Amino acid sequence: MEDTSKMRLNNKTNETNLRKILVILFALSLLVLPAVAAEETGEAIENLQISLTFVWLVLCGGLVFLMHAGFSLVEAGFTRAKNTANILMKNMMTVCIGVLIYWLVGWAIMYGDDIAGVIGFSQFALSGADNSIWNGWFFQMVFAATGATIVSGAMAERTKFKAYLVFTTILVAIIYPVYGHWVWSGADLALLTGSGAWVVQTCGASFHDFAGSGVVHSIGGYAALAGVIILGPRLGKFKNGKPLAIPGHNITFGFLGVLLLWLGWLGFNCGSTLDGNDAYINLVVVNTFLAAAAAAAAAMIITWLKTGKPDPSLTANGVLAGLVAITAPCGSVENWAAIVIGIVAGIIVYAGVMFNEAVLKVDDPVGAIAVHGYCGTWGLLAVGIFSVGMGNGILEGAVYAAGAPGLLYGGVNQFAVQVVGALASIIWAFVAGFIVFKLIDIIIGLRVSEADEVAGLDITEHGIRAYPEYITE
Amino acid sequence: MEDTSKMRLNNKTNETNLRKILVILFALSLLVLPAVAAEETGEAIENLQISLTFVWLVLCGGLVFLMHAGFSLVEAGFTRAKNTANILMKNMMTVCIGVLIYWLVGWAIMYGDDIAGVIGFSQFALSGADNSIWNGWFFQMVFAATGATIVSGAMAERTKFKAYLVFTTILVAIIYPVYGHWVWSGADLALLTGSGAWVVQTCGASFHDFAGSGVVHSIGGYAALAGVIILGPRLGKFKNGKPLAIPGHNITFGFLGVLLLWLGWLGFNCGSTLDGNDAYINLVVVNTFLAAAAAAAAAMIITWLKTGKPDPSLTANGVLAGLVAITAPCGSVENWAAIVIGIVAGIIVYAGVMFNEAVLKVDDPVGAIAVHGYCGTWGLLAVGIFSVGMGNGILEGAVYAAGAPGLLYGGVNQFAVQVVGALASIIWAFVAGFIVFKLIDIIIGLRVSEADEVAGLDITEHGIRAYPEYITE
Amino acid sequence: MEDTSKMRLNNKTNETNLRKILVILFALSLLVLPAVAAEETGEAIENLQISLTFVWLVLCGGLVFLMHAGFSLVEAGFTRAKNTANILMKNMMTVCIGVLIYWLVGWAIMYGDDIAGVIGFSQFALSGADNSIWNGWFFQMVFAATGATIVSGAMAERTKFKAYLVFTTILVAIIYPVYGHWVWSGADLALLTGSGAWVVQTCGASFHDFAGSGVVHSIGGYAALAGVIILGPRLGKFKNGKPLAIPGHNITFGFLGVLLLWLGWLGFNCGSTLDGNDAYINLVVVNTFLAAAAAAAAAMIITWLKTGKPDPSLTANGVLAGLVAITAPCGSVENWAAIVIGIVAGIIVYAGVMFNEAVLKVDDPVGAIAVHGYCGTWGLLAVGIFSVGMGNGILEGAVYAAGAPGLLYGGVNQFAVQVVGALASIIWAFVAGFIVFKLIDIIIGLRVSEADEVAGLDITEHGIRAYPEYITE
Repeated sequence: MEDTSKMRLNNKTNETNLRKILVILFALSLLVLPAVAAEETGEAIENLQISLTFVWLVLCGGLVFLMHAGFSLVEAGFTRAKNTANILMKNMMTVCIGVLIYWLVGWAIMYGDDIAGVIGFSQFALSGADNSIWNGWFFQMVFAATGATIVSGAMAERTKFKAYLVFTTILVAIIYPVYGHWVWSGADLALLTGSGAWVVQTCGASFHDFAGSGVVHSIGGYAALAGVIILGPRLGKFKNGKPLAIPGHNITFGFLGVLLLWLGWLGFNCGSTLDGNDAYINLVVVNTFLAAAAAAAAAMIITWLKTGKPDPSLTANGVLAGLVAITAPCGSVENWAAIVIGIVAGIIVYAGVMFNEAVLKVDDPVGAIAVHGYCGTWGLLAVGIFSVGMGNGILEGAVYAAGAPGLLYGGVNQFAVQVVGALASIIWAFVAGFIVFKLIDIIIGLRVSEADEVAGLDITEHGIRAYPEYITE
Repeated sequence: MEDTSKMRLNNKTNETNLRKILVILFALSLLVLPAVAAEETGEAIENLQISLTFVWLVLCGGLVFLMHAGFSLVEAGFTRAKNTANILMKNMMTVCIGVLIYWLVGWAIMYGDDIAGVIGFSQFALSGADNSIWNGWFFQMVFAATGATIVSGAMAERTKFKAYLVFTTILVAIIYPVYGHWVWSGADLALLTGSGAWVVQTCGASFHDFAGSGVVHSIGGYAALAGVIILGPRLGKFKNGKPLAIPGHNITFGFLGVLLLWLGWLGFNCGSTLDGNDAYINLVVVNTFLAAAAAAAAAMIITWLKTGKPDPSLTANGVLAGLVAITAPCGSVENWAAIVIGIVAGIIVYAGVMFNEAVLKVDDPVGAIAVHGYCGTWGLLAVGIFSVGMGNGILEGAVYAAGAPGLLYGGVNQFAVQVVGALASIIWAFVAGFIVFKLIDIIIGLRVSEADEVAGLDITEHGIRAYPEYITE
Repeated sequence: MEDTSKMRLNNKTNETNLRKILVILFALSLLVLPAVAAEETGEAIENLQISLTFVWLVLCGGLVFLMHAGFSLVEAGFTRAKNTANILMKNMMTVCIGVLIYWLVGWAIMYGDDIAGVIGFSQFALSGADNSIWNGWFFQMVFAATGATIVSGAMAERTKFKAYLVFTTILVAIIYPVYGHWVWSGADLALLTGSGAWVVQTCGASFHDFAGSGVVHSIGGYAALAGVIILGPRLGKFKNGKPLAIPGHNITFGFLGVLLLWLGWLGFNCGSTLDGNDAYINLVVVNTFLAAAAAAAAAMIITWLKTGKPDPSLTANGVLAGLVAITAPCGSVENWAAIVIGIVAGIIVYAGVMFNEAVLKVDDPVGAIAVHGYCGTWGLLAVGIFSVGMGNGILEGAVYAAGAPGLLYGGVNQFAVQVVGALASIIWAFVAGFIVFKLIDIIIGLRVSEADEVAGLDITEHGIRAYPEYITE
């Protein structure tokens, strides 16, 4: 290497030499100035702790970003081939809008200076950002984009591309960050979590939504519910009021998508400690995997009992149901509770899909409302039931879990505030979603024409076919 | 940010402030109590080392988990479209069973209190776990599930779903962790590695299986061999005793799967230092990539010479063969040796596939037995041939490599114990697998009916088609 | 756990005990020998910094490796089904050749002892490597293989497999590392960056190519241009001089590929700080995502305006265009500049594809020349326009960014040297590529026969079909 050693490395060598010199100076200074030396050591250690967090959150953010590949595949795989390119474009643009709009507006509404606990309002376009803010923004941005993607799945195969883009922009700019502000802003008056907020004072506990069963999934799920109600079902979904199955075109894509989402959730949940030095990433990862596995097994067994055969698409949705449900409680509950939460989520996703089709008569091609909406709500309530309580038992050294114990541990305050927070997310997402979709429907139209729907959105909205060479039925 | 800064971040800010106060107190204390201060610094440094390991192993565990997406795609891609959903379900359930059963039983048998060096027996359901145990469990669990997946591939396209689930449960609960206990438990009497074990004392060296050429791949491969012998070949695989090719339905899935497996192996092998502070992750990653590349090139060249055309599916299996073979020796050998190990693995996988079909007359649709079984054995023996010996040459500062030098470096002890350990994995996996499969065959039946096999398992076992829109031949 | 605790963990326990003893000795020693103790603390801290970098670069290298899955899918998805297995084999062999040849030769030419600032020449086969070199090699190797892959896409569907392998070997052994030596070797005389080099002294600034808009993408892109000129267009691409669209067979693969590439780019760009302790990974990741999103949006809007429909394949290429363009400037510019760079890249990729087809009359099935070549050049020039200048504004504490401010910040030196460096990459890659391809064409032939091209390379070059069961048009 010598003088030809990589410049990219050399740029660091100077720093390393500097470090060595510092260490030597440091050593010398210790003889005369121990206090100064200790301060420098303390600073070096603190810098390392911060660096580890930066590395951790950039990588976890990358895993959450991978969830967009997962959602793309799940939504494409579980719908028909003629709408595939449209679904892929919607998901890709969700990411792009997520990046640009959350940079321009969303972060400012969510984490900007608080106005009455309701909304943030500063740091638009990340003005004045430094590396610490950039790190935080990146990890939060990938979450914001995820919320929007959920809506995409429920409204697949019949929504105008332009209408979807407008809705996604508004969701990332306002709907998502406003609720996010209530929960994660840390403002003293933040509606659901601030120590000075009326809700928190009345309930005697702060709402806990660790990684976003509410902020991300419930918000996405109930906005999607509003959307599909206005939009109506796909042609041929209901015959004389009875729901018919419309099979997806590629189960392999669907399953690959679920596995990528599961991996992405590792970043989603473990990264939400927001600290690479927090040992509780280990409890989080174990609970996350236990709940997902239990929910998938439960969903599979239910379909096996009901139909005589284990159903792949409900099993796949079972995985996601378990992941959504454990997202809020993963850092606050014991292993066995994670399994119970998963099993219940597996039951809910099955019942939810049936309920949506048979009772509500809404058409959600990929089951997004049951997975993200209903299981999101369940996850929030589960915190209030199974929370060990920060500082107790396995959470002895935890710094970021639900503050109060849940019903099973003798507490009611945490459960009460979880009910309020869960209801708040349902009402806010549904009402805001309903108004925005209604306005979009009036102004630019939400649904494609019947002829376009029959022909498929790939040709009519994008002028291409996703698989031009295959002959399809 | 100020008071509106993210609560998620704020929860850490208190900690940070605490840290700052500590640093100041620390600085002051140094003036009067240098020893106390030094201890605190030492603790902070140790905590950082542990945190780095936690972060490293959670992320590496995530990469190993990604291997399930890889296996799903390889198995689905290299088999027929009519059995795809079944294969995807088997792989998904392998993960779920892996998570739940390794939590409930597997870990306890593998790492619980030792009984006579043969089996562990405590910590069922991870009782008494803390963050350190959870971290270890997560990384070990993704390995356990991998072992089971290997069997899935070899038995594809004709096995009853229910029978597969039962076998996987037993493999994760008992077959895998028992051999794992002999090798990785660290018990003084552990059959193949404990300092007090007869094998170790007789051979004069401890068996070395760094990341599981034996524990994971050989166990999976020879259990699969037992399974396919009992199961018999797919209809149409042999005509008058001659093997016929049954092409896979989607080579793109197969190749994507191999690339995801390769990436996953980075976590598999590098993570197996079990320490984020161990510089030897770098030797490991380089040897891993060299062996995979060399094996793929070797397998491709062989098929080119034999058939006149470079064969994609054997090339893809060549990558996996190289990865399996280097899994045991990756942290104990020089770069050139990794290449040699890879080349030999590429030859073995070609010869092994031919041998299985022409001599043993067994049908292994994806070549899992040659890849994981035969190359797993080769990897274990390779340690005994190419091991530099801990503390020598490039392994001067290593703390986790084969202890004694291999045949090429003048040692025989390491080779002797590797032979014993390799034979132990073959015998244990084959015999235990044979008994369990035989019992399953008798009690619930192992193979689907001829009619079901012809129709495809997707319809008959799961009631769906993986690609309902495409017209297939 | 006790005595049955995992041996894999136990191997570390000794180390941990050692550490504890060290801490105690350390504490005692501080009472009598403060200077010695401080030195030990300093060493422990430095080791942690190095370990964090090792972990970071191995994981980032893994993400860059994932880009090969991305390229495989993009190239396969955007071309016809009959050439898929060939494309997958080319990409897989690109990785394998990349690993083996960059180990044997490439690294030595790039980072070996400098000869006159033009070429390196030592450390063949990584002789004398230690963990630090292995770490550097791994991260650089995945970059080298990426350069070759670019060529694969442009020349798809008509190139002889053997000819491609020969070219890739030469590119990884010589073409790529020679230019890499000029830019990243750190040699005092290195043609474009050495402090003693004529170019640097004349321009008054050192060429800056952070993560390889030039070294990787421009080199790959212009070598590809030379290749397609010699190779000629696919049969049926031009009719009476007018380009015809040849649609790709699987848009889902294409989009999945783009998302995997995007994730891989996180490792590509953030890892290029080459230091896990550098807080500027956060600026880098934010700029990378902003540019990609802006470019995709710009490309989509252009096609929407031009054709009335938002085009999926150009939108997908827009993402890649933005990523290529921001690769050089990502650590040197403000957020708004990243967005502008992205928008311009989105325009360039659209115009470039049109220009190649309509003016140059070359056939590049996946748009690789426009994406990697033209946008690579744009990225290099963008450094000279938007660079804040190391030490200024947001780059106050940066140690690895463009040294001088760009045109918009009143500097001309940086722009001048960027023009020279960009031209050097174009000329070197095009001329070297042209000569090598010409020689290959003469000696072994570059292009398959017309009959083979019509039949598809899967059957003629590899003897298989990628999707044997589907009936295609």
